Amino acid sequence: MDTAAIAGNTAWLLTAVVAVALMLPGLAMFYGGMVSRRVTMNMMMMIFASFCLVGILWVAFGYSMVFGDSLGGLGLVGDPTEYPGLGQLLVAPEGSTLPPLALAALHLMFAGLTIGIVAGAAAGRMKFSAWMVFAGVWSTLVYFPVAHWVFAFDAADGSVQGGWLANTIGSIDYAGSTAIHVNSGVAALALAIVLGKRNGFPSQPKAHSLPLTLLGAGLLFVGWIGFDGSALGAADNNAAVAVFNTVAATCAGVIVWLIVEKLRDGHPTTLGACSGAIAALVAITPSCGAVTPLGSLAIGAAAAVVCYFAVSLKVRLGFDDALDVTALHFVGGVVGGLLIGVLAVPLAPSGGEGLLAGGGFLLLGKQALAIVAVFVYTFSITWVLAKVLDKTMGIRVSAETEAQGLDVVLHAENAYEISTHEALAPRGHAEPKVPAVVD
Amino acid sequence: MDTAAIAGNTAWLLTAVVAVALMLPGLAMFYGGMVSRRVTMNMMMMIFASFCLVGILWVAFGYSMVFGDSLGGLGLVGDPTEYPGLGQLLVAPEGSTLPPLALAALHLMFAGLTIGIVAGAAAGRMKFSAWMVFAGVWSTLVYFPVAHWVFAFDAADGSVQGGWLANTIGSIDYAGSTAIHVNSGVAALALAIVLGKRNGFPSQPKAHSLPLTLLGAGLLFVGWIGFDGSALGAADNNAAVAVFNTVAATCAGVIVWLIVEKLRDGHPTTLGACSGAIAALVAITPSCGAVTPLGSLAIGAAAAVVCYFAVSLKVRLGFDDALDVTALHFVGGVVGGLLIGVLAVPLAPSGGEGLLAGGGFLLLGKQALAIVAVFVYTFSITWVLAKVLDKTMGIRVSAETEAQGLDVVLHAENAYEISTHEALAPRGHAEPKVPAVVD
Amino acid sequence: MDTAAIAGNTAWLLTAVVAVALMLPGLAMFYGGMVSRRVTMNMMMMIFASFCLVGILWVAFGYSMVFGDSLGGLGLVGDPTEYPGLGQLLVAPEGSTLPPLALAALHLMFAGLTIGIVAGAAAGRMKFSAWMVFAGVWSTLVYFPVAHWVFAFDAADGSVQGGWLANTIGSIDYAGSTAIHVNSGVAALALAIVLGKRNGFPSQPKAHSLPLTLLGAGLLFVGWIGFDGSALGAADNNAAVAVFNTVAATCAGVIVWLIVEKLRDGHPTTLGACSGAIAALVAITPSCGAVTPLGSLAIGAAAAVVCYFAVSLKVRLGFDDALDVTALHFVGGVVGGLLIGVLAVPLAPSGGEGLLAGGGFLLLGKQALAIVAVFVYTFSITWVLAKVLDKTMGIRVSAETEAQGLDVVLHAENAYEISTHEALAPRGHAEPKVPAVVD
Repeated sequence: MDTAAIAGNTAWLLTAVVAVALMLPGLAMFYGGMVSRRVTMNMMMMIFASFCLVGILWVAFGYSMVFGDSLGGLGLVGDPTEYPGLGQLLVAPEGSTLPPLALAALHLMFAGLTIGIVAGAAAGRMKFSAWMVFAGVWSTLVYFPVAHWVFAFDAADGSVQGGWLANTIGSIDYAGSTAIHVNSGVAALALAIVLGKRNGFPSQPKAHSLPLTLLGAGLLFVGWIGFDGSALGAADNNAAVAVFNTVAATCAGVIVWLIVEKLRDGHPTTLGACSGAIAALVAITPSCGAVTPLGSLAIGAAAAVVCYFAVSLKVRLGFDDALDVTALHFVGGVVGGLLIGVLAVPLAPSGGEGLLAGGGFLLLGKQALAIVAVFVYTFSITWVLAKVLDKTMGIRVSAETEAQGLDVVLHAENAYEISTHEALAPRGHAEPKVPAVVD
Repeated sequence: MDTAAIAGNTAWLLTAVVAVALMLPGLAMFYGGMVSRRVTMNMMMMIFASFCLVGILWVAFGYSMVFGDSLGGLGLVGDPTEYPGLGQLLVAPEGSTLPPLALAALHLMFAGLTIGIVAGAAAGRMKFSAWMVFAGVWSTLVYFPVAHWVFAFDAADGSVQGGWLANTIGSIDYAGSTAIHVNSGVAALALAIVLGKRNGFPSQPKAHSLPLTLLGAGLLFVGWIGFDGSALGAADNNAAVAVFNTVAATCAGVIVWLIVEKLRDGHPTTLGACSGAIAALVAITPSCGAVTPLGSLAIGAAAAVVCYFAVSLKVRLGFDDALDVTALHFVGGVVGGLLIGVLAVPLAPSGGEGLLAGGGFLLLGKQALAIVAVFVYTFSITWVLAKVLDKTMGIRVSAETEAQGLDVVLHAENAYEISTHEALAPRGHAEPKVPAVVD
Repeated sequence: MDTAAIAGNTAWLLTAVVAVALMLPGLAMFYGGMVSRRVTMNMMMMIFASFCLVGILWVAFGYSMVFGDSLGGLGLVGDPTEYPGLGQLLVAPEGSTLPPLALAALHLMFAGLTIGIVAGAAAGRMKFSAWMVFAGVWSTLVYFPVAHWVFAFDAADGSVQGGWLANTIGSIDYAGSTAIHVNSGVAALALAIVLGKRNGFPSQPKAHSLPLTLLGAGLLFVGWIGFDGSALGAADNNAAVAVFNTVAATCAGVIVWLIVEKLRDGHPTTLGACSGAIAALVAITPSCGAVTPLGSLAIGAAAAVVCYFAVSLKVRLGFDDALDVTALHFVGGVVGGLLIGVLAVPLAPSGGEGLLAGGGFLLLGKQALAIVAVFVYTFSITWVLAKVLDKTMGIRVSAETEAQGLDVVLHAENAYEISTHEALAPRGHAEPKVPAVVD
């Protein structure tokens, strides 16, 4: 790398940390708005608290498990004892082009947000204590290893060995969708199955505040631009391609979902627009560096169509993935991952020869292998983990707690609060037309 | 440009994409909070969906119409067939200093947000289908050409010809206010006239959630810093001047609006603070690179005073620009554009000789010409377009739909949702003082 | 500084302006959500309006008082007449490495946000006019001088003299906690004492919208990353250390507060999570450049424990710091400032020899001196200022206004609005289950 570019690249990498950090409130508002107001704070707390827990584990051993030298050179997991407490990263090694703690901060965000995505499957019925244990153990047993597979590249001089998907297989995953979206989507499925259905399934949770959800989707969109754009760690043309494709795919995802929805259900909805955006963003995450802008539109559109139908599957299949994590993140990730094998062009930053570029089925096969591997590993471990927790501490709240709402029982809080006194007090010279029975 | 600066400049340009993307949820919350809760989601959806539609058009032909070689060398519109699908922008040309898709992503945001600004004039009474058609056609017939006038600079070697305002006239518009604010403000006026008044006009729409509106204004402010700061595509002293002036003008706009409001209406209000901020931000957009920090304070203050009085005009003139798009974006844009002719100083980045710097009336004349040209072009085309749509598909919802609220009729959604069961359910050991009839 | 790094560093500094600007809506939502819905807009307006007023003062003389040559070389305050209107900063001086107006913009944000932090202590009972006067005078008499002490470094060639804490004492304050958090926390204490208790003290204000508060905390977290990361003005390894430590400390603060809360009060709450985050962020502000990631976890954890107990003190001591500004910002700042003296390591960017690194008590003494100096100065001036305002214009609203709520009396606004008509209108084919008595 051009040494003159170091400060510019570092500026962009740190900016990405800021942008991706927006996804924390973004995800909390997105999910929190979609649930009933009796479980809103629980939903948001699942996201914030598990993020923070995983952040601590990241310092303790998570970073080492992801970026440490592969244990036994097998490419399965990094050595968890390699960077204890990350003190070794305080000083940048001679000749390094990016500050190691900038990369560590960005990947702390990834780890902390991935478990937050899973939380949507467990909305409204999981013990908070069990969730926190699940979050810590899942990140250790599932996220850190899978992130090693995807994000840990072999050192150029062979001194450090990375993960098997990134190096041995060579599947293309520009910004880490395999570790984040495929992974969280599969985990959501396993957890939802073990948790069982909410009271009232298959009715959807009542979205208590669509403005919050739309705000959350907007913040996720903003953060995603930084997420995808910083994947190669440089502020250059590759980053610009990833950024543009991310935005373009989102536009297509929203419009196509709204059209499908209008045709089939009669109305274009806000929830549909949000779902289209997320489906497209997930699908463009692995592929944003591999395709043209037109290819991005195609991927966004395809993700919207496929995920739209995937959403309706859960009712037929009878598992209660409350906020459709599997239908958006797993299915969207599969669409994006596989379409790389079709639409990749050699000129793109992480380009390759897709089917349409005459590359045959090799790349498509590699993409499929990565997805299958994560599906099998993550589903098994997650299912076993959830079962073990269920048999020991119990993971589901009582029916009474579920009926009362988790906010007030588990957190002694209501999302919104008024008192009788306030509602009935005289309101002065600009008195509104009704007693103020609003929050 | 110093080649060593390429990564730094690219980092800042990509950061601007992230920051400006914040204006999408920002605008949606800003407008959405200002309307009744029965049309909140419709308002927000108008913004999100038209943004996405225009993003797709941008890839198809919009970028070409703005940045393509001027058709016939006339400076009126770029060749729409020059960059089909933007595949040509995937690889940066030899010697380029900024990645072409970074610029394309930033301008996609501009195009998508400009139509969103217009939406405020149509709040609460326009068919969603008609809005989407309007958005697509308006962007094609009005935004893309006018943006060509303003943003397309001739190539230094004469190989590519740009727009007439930027090159032939040489009016000063640092960050594109003519294309974005003057343009959207004029379009809002024409659309509001054709749409007709809301039921209940001239009463203002009831702002159902001022916190949402203030949040939106805050996000717009944040995004605007990136917007103005990135106008010259470099992370340098010019950018810093633009950033500082943007912030300073906003401060003056808010304080001055609150003072005027207090003096005339008796109370400093949140809506007033937001209006002062937007008026000042609009006015500083063309001028942020042309004046001193003191000049910025003057522009922010002037915009607040003039726009304050402009807001009250609509009732007297009898057109229902529901959220005062014309009074803030058109009038604010005029104030900022003209004051360049008065306050510009030669030392500023895009400086010139304003009246006060002894430059006489030449610059002022150029500024006025740009505004008049956009007014005439945009008003005519927008009015005709709205009329044509009205005569064909109809642009206004039925009186019954307007009374029921567009959210539930057009989108089958309510912004906020509770059920009787929830409102009356026992609430557990931390029971609040009233049944929870709040969202 | 490496000249090749100028664009990259400038990009990061401008990014920090954008990120820190997010703290303005962030703080408004954070505080606004925590108060009753009858004083929500007043709370938010206190923050927005005082920010803007201080921004104007910043241009007029604030920047000069902070960064001007020290009056009489005493290190107490900069010459307020040195940069009138900041026109001198329009052009970067020969050889400068950072645009002067970029730094000025960032510090405008700091000044404007610091007074906003103080506002939390005055929630729900202060005249808006008195608040604005207080904000302007306090910033002039307290913030600008103290910021000079902390942020104004002597010029290398001795041509300009800066503040006494930064230069003569040499206490460590990486990102300016002494000027911002210790300072605002002490001012909050003095103002709360003079203002007197709210009606209903010691009951906490009813948080009318926890989602708003959590959103605000999230935005503060995001902005803080840019705040701490840009303290040395470069996009380099030091910035990365500050960024990582900021994130890590926050994670520890949240988790530890939730654990303490669960153990003592029985429930982990959203307000607790937010408080833990803010306590940790405050404490890591001075120390983020001085410690290891493990040290950051320790500082975040310590801040959470100490601030948790500090919060309960106010009731015992009988002053009504309504939103616990003192317990979080002053106490958190003290924890972070002192722990530098214990945990600082030489390898860190602004490292030193803390107790544990064998440095003895010297550094600890310097840290304590800085805190004591700010306490004495700020408390005295703030108390006198508040008293003078109270005796002259009066600072407290009438009991009747307090009972009615400040929003409607002072600002003629309600945060949320519905009309009877809307609540009872038929809702069309997708009728919800209850009349819409929600906002």
